[in-house]
Amino acid sequence: MKLMVGHSGNSTAVYLVDGATARNVTAAMPEVSTDLMGLISTPDLMTTLRNGALSGASEEVAKIKPALPVAAPGKILCLGLNYIEHIKEGGYDIPDYPAIFMRTRKSIMAAGAPLVRPTCSEQLDYEAELMIVIGKGGRHISEADALDHVFGYTVFNDGSVRDYQRKTHQWTPGKNFDNTGAIGPYVVTPEDLPEGAAGLKIESRVGNEILQSSNTGNMIWSVAQTIAIMSQFTTLEPGDLIAMGTPPGVGHAKKPGPRWLKPGETVEIEIERIGICASPVVDEVEEAAQ
Amino acid sequence: MKLMVGHSGNSTAVYLVDGATARNVTAAMPEVSTDLMGLISTPDLMTTLRNGALSGASEEVAKIKPALPVAAPGKILCLGLNYIEHIKEGGYDIPDYPAIFMRTRKSIMAAGAPLVRPTCSEQLDYEAELMIVIGKGGRHISEADALDHVFGYTVFNDGSVRDYQRKTHQWTPGKNFDNTGAIGPYVVTPEDLPEGAAGLKIESRVGNEILQSSNTGNMIWSVAQTIAIMSQFTTLEPGDLIAMGTPPGVGHAKKPGPRWLKPGETVEIEIERIGICASPVVDEVEEAAQ
Repeated sequence: MKLMVGHSGNSTAVYLVDGATARNVTAAMPEVSTDLMGLISTPDLMTTLRNGALSGASEEVAKIKPALPVAAPGKILCLGLNYIEHIKEGGYDIPDYPAIFMRTRKSIMAAGAPLVRPTCSEQLDYEAELMIVIGKGGRHISEADALDHVFGYTVFNDGSVRDYQRKTHQWTPGKNFDNTGAIGPYVVTPEDLPEGAAGLKIESRVGNEILQSSNTGNMIWSVAQTIAIMSQFTTLEPGDLIAMGTPPGVGHAKKPGPRWLKPGETVEIEIERIGICASPVVDEVEEAAQ
Repeated sequence: MKLMVGHSGNSTAVYLVDGATARNVTAAMPEVSTDLMGLISTPDLMTTLRNGALSGASEEVAKIKPALPVAAPGKILCLGLNYIEHIKEGGYDIPDYPAIFMRTRKSIMAAGAPLVRPTCSEQLDYEAELMIVIGKGGRHISEADALDHVFGYTVFNDGSVRDYQRKTHQWTPGKNFDNTGAIGPYVVTPEDLPEGAAGLKIESRVGNEILQSSNTGNMIWSVAQTIAIMSQFTTLEPGDLIAMGTPPGVGHAKKPGPRWLKPGETVEIEIERIGICASPVVDEVEEAAQ
């Protein structure tokens, strides 16, 4: 199933997407739900949805303004270096444990919303990533059981401000500028994708310019391994988000380069069978003036 | 004012602490409030409290089991290296920008609650730290205005699992084991402390063994500078927590050493005029069995 949260008119709704049409299934949620948490916390409802037993008004997907799939995720954990060629372009050694950082709620926004270049830097960069939405929580999850904990997969642009990312050895500032990490718009449940969402083409582009083009099969740590590794130290909870790292081709490493994102451009991240996450780039002052 | 959130009997309450006595002021909160967010979001109520105009039952502080001052902070931002002698003992260069990392909600717990040594490591370490509770939110806060954004100060033990902290250059795993970061029990408002909570003795110990002993005046980045630096990239929100880094004397750098925390020990962090945050250390299996 392909799910979407979005604004249509004055309300926020949960939609089941079929091609260019989306069916509003909000009325079936356990409470007035403005994101996917109602579905994540009610597995029976997913079965009902799968059986097509829920009715709801249909709308054109193109008329729905995307909202965040999970409005207030408990945590957003991110892999930093998960494609060998990206590690090499950044000048890092190939590690035997993933580099893990976190993003704040304030740093993320829905697909379609402005990607904000801050006033203090021109080094705004894109990163195409697969993102996991955790369904069932847990600690010490084995690699064998890990995929049972996935609610679905979405598209993430791990927007990074490179000079702030490298102010020190800890990447937090450059990964946490307000409104730099775009998520969505679709969440696709695992039964519609290859195991662990491996083997899918992943691409970033601006217009016809292809910036990154790789395949999720090139990830060093798989989805299952990543869930096992992270749950060794933290209890994963329903609605937690995990970003799986980016392939080579980021702007800071482009030759000739660097190739920073500029206001007026729209950056698109596409993952095969999941969808396109598009973000118009704006300057922080423009954003404030809106 | 010295505030505290705690459990007494079956209820969670907000208390105004005066010596060994605490007055339950929960009834005055804008809604049934089980942490300080009611006070943080209602500055007028703070004025009423300061004027002593609120009545409430009194209890002995010793009979109150502490709870987290903010039950669900939007984010927990932490300075990694903020005392020169601690930077030297860790083998790091003295930076010109602070090392910033984040902790998850799952990694923190109230003062008095078990500090859990995980099954996968014996390298559980203590870190005595001053912690800021943000009152008024904001972005691009100037250093001159920064202290207006502080609701109060509390005590933090930034419990760290060192081998996991150093698995890669990103410290996230070692700083985010479940139930390793103790907070509280008291939050002291700024008018009762020196400006920016500087000049306060800060100490960690187990029984009579003094492990760290320094002064918050030795911090490289002050509270005001830290708020200004962090709000350059992220919007600070009411209830956000900021940990100010630890002085020298951590267990991994002790000579002879290392000096890891062991189950059965109780580690205490004390900051002058704020209070003592004590945590009994337990093994993860013991915790699970409780």
